[in-house]
Amino acid sequence: MKIAGQVSLSDLPRICPLLCRKTHPEYGETDTRVVEVRGVRFGGERPVVIGGPCAVESQEQTLNVARGVRRAGADMLRGGAYKPRTSPHDFQGTGRDGLRILSDAREETGLPVVTEAMDTRLVEQVAEFADMIQIGSRNMQNYPLLAEAGRAGKPVLLKRGMAASLVEWLGAAEYIAQQGNLDIVLCERGIKAFAGGEYSRYVLDLNVIPAVRAHTFLPVIVDPSHATGVAAMVEPASRAALEFGSQGLIIEVSDPSSARPQCDAVQSIDPDTLASIVRFAHARADSSVEKESFA
Amino acid sequence: MKIAGQVSLSDLPRICPLLCRKTHPEYGETDTRVVEVRGVRFGGERPVVIGGPCAVESQEQTLNVARGVRRAGADMLRGGAYKPRTSPHDFQGTGRDGLRILSDAREETGLPVVTEAMDTRLVEQVAEFADMIQIGSRNMQNYPLLAEAGRAGKPVLLKRGMAASLVEWLGAAEYIAQQGNLDIVLCERGIKAFAGGEYSRYVLDLNVIPAVRAHTFLPVIVDPSHATGVAAMVEPASRAALEFGSQGLIIEVSDPSSARPQCDAVQSIDPDTLASIVRFAHARADSSVEKESFA
Amino acid sequence: MKIAGQVSLSDLPRICPLLCRKTHPEYGETDTRVVEVRGVRFGGERPVVIGGPCAVESQEQTLNVARGVRRAGADMLRGGAYKPRTSPHDFQGTGRDGLRILSDAREETGLPVVTEAMDTRLVEQVAEFADMIQIGSRNMQNYPLLAEAGRAGKPVLLKRGMAASLVEWLGAAEYIAQQGNLDIVLCERGIKAFAGGEYSRYVLDLNVIPAVRAHTFLPVIVDPSHATGVAAMVEPASRAALEFGSQGLIIEVSDPSSARPQCDAVQSIDPDTLASIVRFAHARADSSVEKESFA
Amino acid sequence: MKIAGQVSLSDLPRICPLLCRKTHPEYGETDTRVVEVRGVRFGGERPVVIGGPCAVESQEQTLNVARGVRRAGADMLRGGAYKPRTSPHDFQGTGRDGLRILSDAREETGLPVVTEAMDTRLVEQVAEFADMIQIGSRNMQNYPLLAEAGRAGKPVLLKRGMAASLVEWLGAAEYIAQQGNLDIVLCERGIKAFAGGEYSRYVLDLNVIPAVRAHTFLPVIVDPSHATGVAAMVEPASRAALEFGSQGLIIEVSDPSSARPQCDAVQSIDPDTLASIVRFAHARADSSVEKESFA
Repeated sequence: MKIAGQVSLSDLPRICPLLCRKTHPEYGETDTRVVEVRGVRFGGERPVVIGGPCAVESQEQTLNVARGVRRAGADMLRGGAYKPRTSPHDFQGTGRDGLRILSDAREETGLPVVTEAMDTRLVEQVAEFADMIQIGSRNMQNYPLLAEAGRAGKPVLLKRGMAASLVEWLGAAEYIAQQGNLDIVLCERGIKAFAGGEYSRYVLDLNVIPAVRAHTFLPVIVDPSHATGVAAMVEPASRAALEFGSQGLIIEVSDPSSARPQCDAVQSIDPDTLASIVRFAHARADSSVEKESFA
Repeated sequence: MKIAGQVSLSDLPRICPLLCRKTHPEYGETDTRVVEVRGVRFGGERPVVIGGPCAVESQEQTLNVARGVRRAGADMLRGGAYKPRTSPHDFQGTGRDGLRILSDAREETGLPVVTEAMDTRLVEQVAEFADMIQIGSRNMQNYPLLAEAGRAGKPVLLKRGMAASLVEWLGAAEYIAQQGNLDIVLCERGIKAFAGGEYSRYVLDLNVIPAVRAHTFLPVIVDPSHATGVAAMVEPASRAALEFGSQGLIIEVSDPSSARPQCDAVQSIDPDTLASIVRFAHARADSSVEKESFA
Repeated sequence: MKIAGQVSLSDLPRICPLLCRKTHPEYGETDTRVVEVRGVRFGGERPVVIGGPCAVESQEQTLNVARGVRRAGADMLRGGAYKPRTSPHDFQGTGRDGLRILSDAREETGLPVVTEAMDTRLVEQVAEFADMIQIGSRNMQNYPLLAEAGRAGKPVLLKRGMAASLVEWLGAAEYIAQQGNLDIVLCERGIKAFAGGEYSRYVLDLNVIPAVRAHTFLPVIVDPSHATGVAAMVEPASRAALEFGSQGLIIEVSDPSSARPQCDAVQSIDPDTLASIVRFAHARADSSVEKESFA
Repeated sequence: MKIAGQVSLSDLPRICPLLCRKTHPEYGETDTRVVEVRGVRFGGERPVVIGGPCAVESQEQTLNVARGVRRAGADMLRGGAYKPRTSPHDFQGTGRDGLRILSDAREETGLPVVTEAMDTRLVEQVAEFADMIQIGSRNMQNYPLLAEAGRAGKPVLLKRGMAASLVEWLGAAEYIAQQGNLDIVLCERGIKAFAGGEYSRYVLDLNVIPAVRAHTFLPVIVDPSHATGVAAMVEPASRAALEFGSQGLIIEVSDPSSARPQCDAVQSIDPDTLASIVRFAHARADSSVEKESFA
């Protein structure tokens, strides 16, 4: 009994020739492509730490958090203006207003901004305000959106789908690359498995990190906030991710001065914890840890 | 340690008030909304059987298969004009030409047509040619696409995401309903689990069928072709799905006269096997099997 | 990066030469070995239906249920005397007393008895009272227990582990076969996957049924009670299992006259529902449904 | 539709009152019970590193590896004398001879020994030679074996089942504790999920580590060898586990002087890599990393 649709990592040269180490030998067996976002270098000497609110709710909240992120020493600001929500009746984000607020926050703090695009017709709008376009987990296989993001002239942060194999993930990245844009950063954010929901939101799959680095030259980072869903786990998960080879982190940060935010508060950390993660990331990068070869 | 983002079936009245039996008591505890597609009645007296090729490759191939589907006694024709493929370098479908071919096949066979829309900007085009718009697994949480499909004036077939919970699936359907379109048919098509890939492509999750029927009044069907990925399993899986409460089937059918088709041939059945499934579906509906209450 | 411990169905001839169709061609490509238990024939003309309480709690309760099972037309009696429980502080079964009660129930009803053995040192005791020894999911890879069961001179019912691949399951069966006992019946009982717990207890994996039948000549049955964990799903799941090629069912039946039993009441059905399942099984076997070849 | 058998972490006080922080408040909210094995202290100031061969194959091989483990600065020796194998026709271990070899290796190197017991009737024999009894993943819910291990007078290393929830795992530990033995060390070793087999053997679930520490006072360690199945991943996985709160590691080490060992060679590391892991573990423990509270 043959099974349809079976692919494995050995099919990568055919599936993603633009991104596969084997078919694109410019980067050799271990080098990472450096993806620059307004001077922030993914795949460079130091891990990149991105912090910010789950959603951009207001100017004040976003600026408060952005200042905390900057004081913590992080490199970039995140925050959702368009939010994919399980229910259409839930808060859907502040949209264009949110993008403007993020842009203001960048102006004040100097932090480059990454934010999610969900609609092909709004990618251009997002690209106008943001420095990096995020494609969320739910849209990892929304191929028209990937192509649009690839054409928008900005680097793209591509989150792994909740049930995506590595082949499917790199295949999705190839849709961006096909538009002539190799400035792609991959992001592991937890997968669906039987263990999800008992003590954490998803299962953080760090095994994928060295596998990504063995098969493609793109940088890969980790989202410990969604992968755990538990604020107390974010710091240990961040350190673990860096030790496992992650080249950066994207973390939800709360505004301590504000009331309960509209989504995912339970997994947000405060700026002090973020500062502790940044110190760890920098100290680790600056020490003489030998670089692993994952090939 | 609290976990972010936890929702359960008890949250359905808040998440999908338009589709939930509890908040929309018009259909009582067991009645199904009948969704009509050019006279074909999902949720009616008999299960609906949809057959057709994986992809619309040519006029000849599609007409050959469509005639086989019609001779087999099935109710509708399926076929992908726009195909979501793991790699951008694989065959992406025949697009608008494919839609025209499907339209021709309808004209000749009288079978209403369902085909997938993947791009918000092409939903209108798809709706122009097709009688029912399919949203595929990969796009189950592509919310702008769901809204666009909801506005297109045609019934929508919403496939379950490969890792979607029931709450997430019904939440996705609510995005369609919110546009004023309750003509939605749900479709289970196999989920990702450790067992996938060893002896079948996905894990067919029939337990979800009575759960869907208990929580919403929308009809639900099963795609045994993708759920198993093995041609020899399609007929037993079809019968099992009907016994478990499925109100229809969507099945890939091959063109025996043609050479190897461009995708998923291993899971396609021939028209004779489809005829056998149709006979089973009709005999079962016509006999005096007591109706289950899943409430 | 090579991965340790990878095996696939193509390794079966090496892993289980005694049970694999390819290496043990006596049964051809589709024949099933008939496993007889006091005249009940697994793999024979009709599916075997086993019913009984989750646990043997008392003489009265067990006899009440056994009479209901007999009246329903089922073939065998199930019931746990030794119970594997998540907590050591929960009810652990009635042990040897329970075995004696099962033996009395057989005497009164004529139904052969299957019950679980959990301890290598008690297999002989279980075999003294029971007609068939059950190895539960939790012990599917308890190899000394499998060997002991293989030596006990009675047929063995081997449940699939909650996360067992088909190779692991057949490998476990081979431990029994190695002792010279080929009277083994396999039983699918639901697997662990992300969907478990939302609307059903486990995910019933019916795709495995034709795969089992393609690769080994042993009969395979389904436990719809544990696989769903929901009484209202047991009947549709039973019918679905038979349509998918299952050669029998093992079902939990409640004692309507008694108070709440000590375990798993929520998934037990009453004798009338069991009777309806038996009628379906017999009608299906007696009608002219063509036999599938799964090879 | 109610679902049978649903338990959650809030049921822990009932399921494992002997091991639950809430019902056994002696250790407060964050203290770990120190489990001593011949002077090696699990849950003490430094993480415990255990190294050794997958299987004890010969005196020479075991001594070679044991010397490497000792030179690397690790704390204990592991090695299987009784091996649970998927096929009964595969190498089953060297049994009592293997135990004697481990005992000799302890004599020469001073390293305490942990080895697996699989058979209730051999626990006493294993306890005679070993300093710590390992219960493997496949036997996590072999309750008679757990009870026997609890009575054997030696500390027990309890690996998590491949599909065990946290409640099931702690429930299993409670069977040991019920015998009056609280000297239990838990070990995460990878779980089954859709991602297993593509780029790693299992999915290493580090989220469970802080959850274990929040709910019980028992120490918890990680097996990066089985969890990844890839030698090149073992070192980064080890560091990640320690950063995530793991209190030790158990690692497969190969004998560089020998030919291909009989099992799992692909995941074994050499003694130099082990030494690097030990240095990391000690440096981390000795530096001023703040201790997390997981409560």
